[in-house]
Amino acid sequence: MELVVDRLRIEAGGPLVVVINRLDAANLGVFSSDRVFVRHGDRHAVCILNISEEGNPGVLGVYSEVARFLGVQEGDRVWVEPARRPESLDYIREKINGQRLTPWKIQRIVGDVVEHHLSDIELAAFVTALHIHGVSMEEVEALSRTMIWSGKQLDFGEPPILDKHSIGGVPGDKTTLLVAPIVASAGYLIPKSSSRAITSPAGTADRMEALAPVDIPLERVKEIVGEVGACIVWGGSIELAPADDLFIRVEYPLSIDPLLLPSIMSKKKAMGSTHLVVDIPVGSQAKIKTLVEAESLAGDFIELGKRLGLNIECAATEGSQPIGYNIGPILEAREALETLSGRGSQELLDKATGLAGILFEMVGHSEGRKMALDLVRSGKALEKMREIIEAQGGDSSVEPGDLVPGEFVHVVESACGGRVLGFNNRDLVKVSRAAGTPNAKGAGVVLHAKTGDSVEEGEPLFSIYAEKEDKLDNAVRLLETLTPVEVGERVGAQMVKRRIGRPTSVKWDFILDR
Amino acid sequence: MELVVDRLRIEAGGPLVVVINRLDAANLGVFSSDRVFVRHGDRHAVCILNISEEGNPGVLGVYSEVARFLGVQEGDRVWVEPARRPESLDYIREKINGQRLTPWKIQRIVGDVVEHHLSDIELAAFVTALHIHGVSMEEVEALSRTMIWSGKQLDFGEPPILDKHSIGGVPGDKTTLLVAPIVASAGYLIPKSSSRAITSPAGTADRMEALAPVDIPLERVKEIVGEVGACIVWGGSIELAPADDLFIRVEYPLSIDPLLLPSIMSKKKAMGSTHLVVDIPVGSQAKIKTLVEAESLAGDFIELGKRLGLNIECAATEGSQPIGYNIGPILEAREALETLSGRGSQELLDKATGLAGILFEMVGHSEGRKMALDLVRSGKALEKMREIIEAQGGDSSVEPGDLVPGEFVHVVESACGGRVLGFNNRDLVKVSRAAGTPNAKGAGVVLHAKTGDSVEEGEPLFSIYAEKEDKLDNAVRLLETLTPVEVGERVGAQMVKRRIGRPTSVKWDFILDR
Repeated sequence: MELVVDRLRIEAGGPLVVVINRLDAANLGVFSSDRVFVRHGDRHAVCILNISEEGNPGVLGVYSEVARFLGVQEGDRVWVEPARRPESLDYIREKINGQRLTPWKIQRIVGDVVEHHLSDIELAAFVTALHIHGVSMEEVEALSRTMIWSGKQLDFGEPPILDKHSIGGVPGDKTTLLVAPIVASAGYLIPKSSSRAITSPAGTADRMEALAPVDIPLERVKEIVGEVGACIVWGGSIELAPADDLFIRVEYPLSIDPLLLPSIMSKKKAMGSTHLVVDIPVGSQAKIKTLVEAESLAGDFIELGKRLGLNIECAATEGSQPIGYNIGPILEAREALETLSGRGSQELLDKATGLAGILFEMVGHSEGRKMALDLVRSGKALEKMREIIEAQGGDSSVEPGDLVPGEFVHVVESACGGRVLGFNNRDLVKVSRAAGTPNAKGAGVVLHAKTGDSVEEGEPLFSIYAEKEDKLDNAVRLLETLTPVEVGERVGAQMVKRRIGRPTSVKWDFILDR
Repeated sequence: MELVVDRLRIEAGGPLVVVINRLDAANLGVFSSDRVFVRHGDRHAVCILNISEEGNPGVLGVYSEVARFLGVQEGDRVWVEPARRPESLDYIREKINGQRLTPWKIQRIVGDVVEHHLSDIELAAFVTALHIHGVSMEEVEALSRTMIWSGKQLDFGEPPILDKHSIGGVPGDKTTLLVAPIVASAGYLIPKSSSRAITSPAGTADRMEALAPVDIPLERVKEIVGEVGACIVWGGSIELAPADDLFIRVEYPLSIDPLLLPSIMSKKKAMGSTHLVVDIPVGSQAKIKTLVEAESLAGDFIELGKRLGLNIECAATEGSQPIGYNIGPILEAREALETLSGRGSQELLDKATGLAGILFEMVGHSEGRKMALDLVRSGKALEKMREIIEAQGGDSSVEPGDLVPGEFVHVVESACGGRVLGFNNRDLVKVSRAAGTPNAKGAGVVLHAKTGDSVEEGEPLFSIYAEKEDKLDNAVRLLETLTPVEVGERVGAQMVKRRIGRPTSVKWDFILDR
């Protein structure tokens, strides 16, 4: 059937979608979500069909992705006929029905995802089935491999190439800003690609951006790592694993992440890493609640690393409260710089040198933590951080005092005396995001006391920073219903913690950044 | 944030979707699939967000559904702010994680489906989770009830209101065209809403349309049933269960139908039925393969009927080959009329009087089948069918000979002598659809022999009818690879049926019509 192109001036957001009128669909004998073959001159595409009640007969509505792919203009005539449904749909059905998928079938599915041949409906069903039935180690391996193949890969030459990854979920975790320069200052390569915040107050890319540009093209990333041994760039700028972004688009609204392991590992392999330490924060409000769970996840990481030829060790880390005292891009960059200068947070220094130490021991050193501490104390790590900042186009002479947070500040005082019993991390995240993070780089929260510290009535507990007054007001207003910090005599002094009189909607805040 | 409306002149196909630029999304602090609250004057809507790389900052792209709902024009200014995610997403997550849903939670989900608050991704995850974890009888009941509430309901007054439903899947099943007039000719009410074909050669609505209009507004349906006691109309014209169409949109591409029972029952209850016979065809190529499976499904129907106050009996019927000899809208209408006249297919008559007989016995008669046979033999059923045709606006004087199939015919002869061993129903469906069914009403297939019949070499096996020559050619060309009819000496004369040397993609042809 010949149809006239109507360019819809809009993206479908992934899949190759065309829209036809109900009557044309009936004549073609196709139904919504069926595939049609669309030909224009010597170019053609298999597209997913939407059926419209509104559009005119004889017209094919094409989303921008399809128009670009076929090179069609408004009014062009194209040939449309029914096409076979992609084979990968059969394999998705197999997974829905609980079967294990062979590597070949997984390759077909991921291939069709990357080529935009699967609709949101089909992708969502696949991800849901992976979540419900679980993913076997063979499947994780195959998913990782095909996700690597689908993107670009870097080669930094001679191994070892070191790397550090955190599964995330704890506010204020700026550890990477220390680990990368510590490792590079020992002469090792550590090319770090990192993410921006989606649901958290700051991702590592947001923190680093307070010091230097992070949106850096692939070729320049190679040069930087060659020059200074490390980089801390935004992974989104280098197209390492395009399949991953397409899966995240579906995982995020469902708050499930069955593809967590392949997602992480494919990006590490694509960066050419050979030795990786994985940080698994453990705590009642972290992604991983117990050490037993952490050991199980670590086992999967290590096994998968073996299969993919990547040396992995994991660290279960303290994850019950924010790391250090600062939350928000500029505030965290400042704390990282202070800690590299020897004046910052003791727990941040402990975590960073602990993780860097594991990496050093993985490549043959003994007493890795001491080696890492020495690199900080001697100033070498700070010097290396300045080199990285300069290589990425930032100001290498930056001092912590130059990093100025937003000018609007609200200090929250303790309503009673006692000790800090703990933090409600999600409340802290909400307050911080209301104040403007991650987009307002100067927004955030500074804690004045951590768990176990004594506080007096009226003593400052934490301060909220914002770049705009109305944002600060929003954040302060949230405190009427939220309790970011719990203060009391001792744990158990108030045994009844919450009275629950009617069913409430459990808002499940998904921490997606990975 | 205030944005300027860009009307996208296209439907999202269900959900209320708006599109904004990546920068505006970052400023709002929202991510793809998050919800935003959109206000225009005193109208407002909670919409699902898509994020575009292409659109201009400051602009809100609105799909037609949203534009209609808010009454906005191109260039209008609207207020946009982040909104809470719908509660129903928490309940969908619970189902994904294997929990049973309470009626209240199911009501929230179905409500959000009908109000277009859920995206394709979320709906697909829900349907996939229902398929994998199964749906309990409590959940089926709650789904049925809320799907009834979401649509219109008919009241035909005094019970009993009789009804017949087939779960479908066998080509040529025109039984309803006989059951409805047989039942009504005994003085009972039987308002039939039926479906059009989606993947089959003809739905009951398509068959009836060869005799009379079937796209009839609700008010007129009531009048027709009041006048003649029966109707056979297209369910799509009377908006009985709007939720069902929205679910089918997601179930179809996934080839799963966890909502089959609620879908059927909600429509029957909405039609006001009090006594229902459910036809469950059984055969190796039907939806239900064995009598044991049929009994299990029947048990669910009966139990669900009890919960919803609907008297149900089921019939497991012969479903291994097409019903009667004709496939395709006009050909099937002709065979139905012939059979009502006493000259048609014996097996069709047997099936129709068997099912009508069960209904008669359910409302207190003895020897229901004999009663049904008498109504056919006396000509009363045919007379009633003519009344129904006239009431719906057709020609009541129609004779079988007036129903003329397509003029292009190809007769397929038997390549050898022997007996008809069986039919490959899916091959028959493919040939019939290639010839033009269901849109070309005169297209189809006529069988000249059924299972067990003797045929000689060169004797006609079946004929293909088409309205256009190229369609006939397409159908005939398919015969090179398909075997709609199997002829041989006896079952087992050729023990090796198929040689399978390499893995093949199993094309799973989903028979969705319900």
